[in-house]
Amino acid sequence: MPGRNFLFIPGPTTVPRRIQNAMNHEQEDMRAMDLPGFTKPLYEDMKKVFKTENGRVFIFPASGTGGWESAVSNTLNAGDKVLMSSFGHFSHLWVDLCQRWGLEVQCFEEEWGDGVPVEKYAQVLAADKNHEIKAVFATQNETATGVASDIAGVRKALDACDHPAMLFVDGVSSVGSIDFRMDEWGVDICVSGSQKGFMLPTGLGIVCASEKALACREGSTLPKTFFDWNDQIKTNDLGYFPYTPPMNLLRGLRESLNMIFEEGLDNVFARHNRMANAVRAAVSAWGMRPIANDENWYSDTVTAVKVPEGFDGNEVVRHAYNYYNLALSISLTKIAGKAFRIGHLGDMNELMVLTPINGAEMTMKDLGYPIELGSGVAAAQEYLRSTAKPRIQ
Amino acid sequence: MPGRNFLFIPGPTTVPRRIQNAMNHEQEDMRAMDLPGFTKPLYEDMKKVFKTENGRVFIFPASGTGGWESAVSNTLNAGDKVLMSSFGHFSHLWVDLCQRWGLEVQCFEEEWGDGVPVEKYAQVLAADKNHEIKAVFATQNETATGVASDIAGVRKALDACDHPAMLFVDGVSSVGSIDFRMDEWGVDICVSGSQKGFMLPTGLGIVCASEKALACREGSTLPKTFFDWNDQIKTNDLGYFPYTPPMNLLRGLRESLNMIFEEGLDNVFARHNRMANAVRAAVSAWGMRPIANDENWYSDTVTAVKVPEGFDGNEVVRHAYNYYNLALSISLTKIAGKAFRIGHLGDMNELMVLTPINGAEMTMKDLGYPIELGSGVAAAQEYLRSTAKPRIQ
Amino acid sequence: MPGRNFLFIPGPTTVPRRIQNAMNHEQEDMRAMDLPGFTKPLYEDMKKVFKTENGRVFIFPASGTGGWESAVSNTLNAGDKVLMSSFGHFSHLWVDLCQRWGLEVQCFEEEWGDGVPVEKYAQVLAADKNHEIKAVFATQNETATGVASDIAGVRKALDACDHPAMLFVDGVSSVGSIDFRMDEWGVDICVSGSQKGFMLPTGLGIVCASEKALACREGSTLPKTFFDWNDQIKTNDLGYFPYTPPMNLLRGLRESLNMIFEEGLDNVFARHNRMANAVRAAVSAWGMRPIANDENWYSDTVTAVKVPEGFDGNEVVRHAYNYYNLALSISLTKIAGKAFRIGHLGDMNELMVLTPINGAEMTMKDLGYPIELGSGVAAAQEYLRSTAKPRIQ
Amino acid sequence: MPGRNFLFIPGPTTVPRRIQNAMNHEQEDMRAMDLPGFTKPLYEDMKKVFKTENGRVFIFPASGTGGWESAVSNTLNAGDKVLMSSFGHFSHLWVDLCQRWGLEVQCFEEEWGDGVPVEKYAQVLAADKNHEIKAVFATQNETATGVASDIAGVRKALDACDHPAMLFVDGVSSVGSIDFRMDEWGVDICVSGSQKGFMLPTGLGIVCASEKALACREGSTLPKTFFDWNDQIKTNDLGYFPYTPPMNLLRGLRESLNMIFEEGLDNVFARHNRMANAVRAAVSAWGMRPIANDENWYSDTVTAVKVPEGFDGNEVVRHAYNYYNLALSISLTKIAGKAFRIGHLGDMNELMVLTPINGAEMTMKDLGYPIELGSGVAAAQEYLRSTAKPRIQ
Repeated sequence: MPGRNFLFIPGPTTVPRRIQNAMNHEQEDMRAMDLPGFTKPLYEDMKKVFKTENGRVFIFPASGTGGWESAVSNTLNAGDKVLMSSFGHFSHLWVDLCQRWGLEVQCFEEEWGDGVPVEKYAQVLAADKNHEIKAVFATQNETATGVASDIAGVRKALDACDHPAMLFVDGVSSVGSIDFRMDEWGVDICVSGSQKGFMLPTGLGIVCASEKALACREGSTLPKTFFDWNDQIKTNDLGYFPYTPPMNLLRGLRESLNMIFEEGLDNVFARHNRMANAVRAAVSAWGMRPIANDENWYSDTVTAVKVPEGFDGNEVVRHAYNYYNLALSISLTKIAGKAFRIGHLGDMNELMVLTPINGAEMTMKDLGYPIELGSGVAAAQEYLRSTAKPRIQ
Repeated sequence: MPGRNFLFIPGPTTVPRRIQNAMNHEQEDMRAMDLPGFTKPLYEDMKKVFKTENGRVFIFPASGTGGWESAVSNTLNAGDKVLMSSFGHFSHLWVDLCQRWGLEVQCFEEEWGDGVPVEKYAQVLAADKNHEIKAVFATQNETATGVASDIAGVRKALDACDHPAMLFVDGVSSVGSIDFRMDEWGVDICVSGSQKGFMLPTGLGIVCASEKALACREGSTLPKTFFDWNDQIKTNDLGYFPYTPPMNLLRGLRESLNMIFEEGLDNVFARHNRMANAVRAAVSAWGMRPIANDENWYSDTVTAVKVPEGFDGNEVVRHAYNYYNLALSISLTKIAGKAFRIGHLGDMNELMVLTPINGAEMTMKDLGYPIELGSGVAAAQEYLRSTAKPRIQ
Repeated sequence: MPGRNFLFIPGPTTVPRRIQNAMNHEQEDMRAMDLPGFTKPLYEDMKKVFKTENGRVFIFPASGTGGWESAVSNTLNAGDKVLMSSFGHFSHLWVDLCQRWGLEVQCFEEEWGDGVPVEKYAQVLAADKNHEIKAVFATQNETATGVASDIAGVRKALDACDHPAMLFVDGVSSVGSIDFRMDEWGVDICVSGSQKGFMLPTGLGIVCASEKALACREGSTLPKTFFDWNDQIKTNDLGYFPYTPPMNLLRGLRESLNMIFEEGLDNVFARHNRMANAVRAAVSAWGMRPIANDENWYSDTVTAVKVPEGFDGNEVVRHAYNYYNLALSISLTKIAGKAFRIGHLGDMNELMVLTPINGAEMTMKDLGYPIELGSGVAAAQEYLRSTAKPRIQ
Repeated sequence: MPGRNFLFIPGPTTVPRRIQNAMNHEQEDMRAMDLPGFTKPLYEDMKKVFKTENGRVFIFPASGTGGWESAVSNTLNAGDKVLMSSFGHFSHLWVDLCQRWGLEVQCFEEEWGDGVPVEKYAQVLAADKNHEIKAVFATQNETATGVASDIAGVRKALDACDHPAMLFVDGVSSVGSIDFRMDEWGVDICVSGSQKGFMLPTGLGIVCASEKALACREGSTLPKTFFDWNDQIKTNDLGYFPYTPPMNLLRGLRESLNMIFEEGLDNVFARHNRMANAVRAAVSAWGMRPIANDENWYSDTVTAVKVPEGFDGNEVVRHAYNYYNLALSISLTKIAGKAFRIGHLGDMNELMVLTPINGAEMTMKDLGYPIELGSGVAAAQEYLRSTAKPRIQ
């Protein structure tokens, strides 16, 4: 079929040509004498993305799910009590993983559309006088609902009662796109992946761990080999790896960091906010709204667009793909059919973000939605043009 | 800068990934014993694009300009009388080339926005009782103004008075995008290039010659080496080339033909017409119109959008590029500033063609044009969605 | 530095351009409605490489180490008794992994250079009247020493005493290069990876499981999420994945299978044997020999070349890399310094395999080895040319 | 067929991955407002490769043949007397081109294997008291025979008699590989192409012209459009082009210059000399010799290896391609069958240059040549290793 496919799911995201070219690197010897000259600065620079000085980054040939597993199996033990909340497909899966690994999970089941219940967390933590809770989990960006939570708030809740529990954050669809501050927020573990803000193909599970989290290795009893931090530390410190590393993705990650730093990390965040605002302006012009229940929870990387009663959001996704070669994202499990999702993260600019708005608009019209063609687009255009800056001069 | 560039000029056009990959071929020996197995079917298949049985295709490592030069220098001699018309930058340049090569050019200077003056041609030909006119030139698609002319009409004019002059057609921005019929229309030479409908980078000058045109080599006295047909014929017939050929482009051309034949040549034309209609619907919704003076002259590959009095169309191009990373095309020489051009040819689908409409809309709004945001987009959307078909089922 | 790098380590191997291009696929929606049309045939075709009808293939975004972990954690439980043997870095690491996961490992520590001790296995199995041994492990190709073991022999040992233990095979550096017969040899689990015979970059952990192995999921108690077979089965059966799949590698794997099937799987094995024979002819001409203690154990994918007393094989690797841009492979742990390794697997032909022979020859001369320049090359040339066949006619 | 193709013809040469990636640039608007920021430094830097301060470089989407045509048609007129010499396929074709363009050619037909007859030139020039000779032509590197001529010597011959004729040099297979000094040697026109020392695919005809040559435009009467310098100058000076430029090749050329300058132009020459010496050492060890009749004429970019009586050098080329996937180059016209050619230019290092030696050695043995396997290789190895330097430390 002629013409390109348009991918606007919340990851994988479009891989820019610079990164594609960087990954087109010839295969290389993972034990080459000059490899540390590449590896060490890469790991050091990764810390900047997490805004950490003393943390340590692990990069596994895996995915975000593998990152979660690595986080849990290296720091917690079976029977450990953890505080979690579930308000979407991915926060739910994280709970599921913790349970499978034998943790004792106290989980708040929140409405899909809400975020981390910071107040409830605060109460539980304050009541946990014996400090039985070993870790508190928070999903910074719930990809299924487009809800961004208040990580700094969770930190405050911990500090308010001097609770020593560690803070685990799922940053898979936020790191590199939405502000994240490892050190300032006192995060102990943040998990991410390659195929979102890092603009790479799927294949890297990325974990950033604080010194406190690292210290937990001592006394860790859950079985692990592939995701074992000790093996990584021993070899990473020399600029190498415990098993064959995915060098092409690492070469791509190097170029990804180059691009992020050239633009400026905070500029990247501001750009994501701007793209998200454009999408939200369109949604609003359609007379619709995000699944996120409060604008404080609006995600800057993905918007789950709530469809009117009587419509099936997932039909929007199928129709857009079938008629307009546009990949939007379906709504899953609890909100299946109640929304369709637009990913607006990664390598993105004005005309790119207008594409899924155009495509969704046509698709909804095709499917009989009560919307006016051009309405969402016009709102997004107005927002984008009124905030645009020249690239060259 | 983050995000991709959008290229909507009337060539070069976007190179699809399939073709890009095909061109990423390792360098090869142009005298390899098995090369004819690649070369011969390629040349044979090229004839299908021109819709010719008995014609012959030449492929030069050059551009359309080189194709023109090849056409003239192999078939005509200094002092030969030719009938031409100029109504845009490219038809003008072709006249200029003929004059530089010593032809005696009779040229109708038409208004920019008009096309080949078939009636005037008919009169001149009818009056040329001695058949002094050796060739009649027609630009099928004037890229500068977005005007498509009536080649079959020129043939009729020749036939009406039994005039033996050859018919030369500039098909640089039409072949592979707008219907062209070498044999049926009795065209003797058609010139094209790689960077338009063939979806390749610039670098190939393509010429299709009829048997009558080929016979002119006998008696040809203009100097030539690089563009000499005899050298090509002698080697091409064996599956080889008179000098080092641009193999990567030829590998890409093979994939281009594969794509065109998979879609079906006439489907390609219909798709281009549909894309063009979408653009024209937007232009009309903006309260504007093409430079082309008559809808019979509307080009399906490029639209030159006439801007209102007091505005500079070329400022649209600069602003779109600077603010939205969108490459539109400036208006040249006689209409400089009076229009901006949108290329809508090559590997193109619904959401792609909406992009320059979105970008032009925002840009014009930025520059104070009296248009309503979303208006052009909505019109294009409506046309596209009402004519869309599913890709998969 | 000018000129290309030459990679002759036993994985990663050189990625052919066809596969590189296939991986240069645009990012895609892992939930696209037409994805199963790609996924299902891919998984089905993978079974052909393992020569299995009823087995099932799992593909993880991981590495061979992850494949091992997946094999163990889905089929065995803590305390399960397993029979293993260690005779090289990788068979040793597999033992280590089993121990970390709580298995009760009975391990024969064999001399490095020997292979799986089939006779000893037979005795232990015959003595295990109560069938306490749940699984027998065999490394088909020990990458560290270049030793290929007799998997069919292990099956015979099991059958000889009607022992019901499962047979686990490490085929990371053999599958797709050395004959492997899942069904015929009654193998229950075979683990492989992408970066060896599959000619892909690192990033896929591949596991093939028999019906018997699959049945072990029932009753499996080791913790797992990322490597959980149940999650894979549930989604793979529909043509999808439990978490974001590494689509680019899967697109590359598709092309890898295309290439393997075009050549013919058994032709691929024969070619590997021929390449290996050439290397061994060179080694012999140098007056040296492989680490492998018996020619029955010679590996067709990697040769560990034993260096004379007083020389450091790893200095050969450093010097070759530093002076000739040639990546050979160092010798590890127990044989560190006693050998250097030449990988001769994957996309390889005559002139490719001569390259590390040339480079090693020059390097050894540089380092004062008592060898004659050209001697190893001449022997390899003679073998290769006397067994060469025309490509074209 | 498995394994890569090896290309060792004297152009096209292997394109390094860096350049390949640079050419994988998205298509771009050749009238973009920021294009001059790319174009102007590119043209300026090209002058460094020709070692000229005041010359001007033209880059045509063509080949070396187009470059020749451009050189002649912009500076000379029909009937102009020129002094040439023919001693190989390419110097012969240049003569042919000049004759086709109506020049009055005085040509020395030299033995193939000899170079530019500087002495004879000197005599003719001294005798040309009326300075009727407008230009003297010299092929710096005759690709067909592997003969490098003495350009400085031609300059001396001109100076010795104060002859004002221009000096035209064919540098297609020398520029960027063999030292060339436009200003120091008083060269007026040097023609080159992209697919040799510049390590690019075929597609650029490159011409460097002195101020004196440029001044000839005034009064030039040969017809030209595509290759017209005036059109180039007018647009190049603004950072643009007279017709659609081959931007991908220009992006690749930028990277080519980056690589050449990083290595150092004179280091590039020294490396080519070293590669050539290795090939010649092998040839000598085979008991054979180059077609070049004197070692002063040995080319550092290509060696035409003279085969013994009774053998057909072109059969070597066919057999090497058919059996070993090695592209060597046939011998043409006057020496057809008397030699085979090895290209050793461009992106090349020790192990690369050994490959055609290995392949030729096996091939000659296959065809019954009286050579010893390993002999040529050993000689080349000895030369290369004794002159090797570490890459890293």
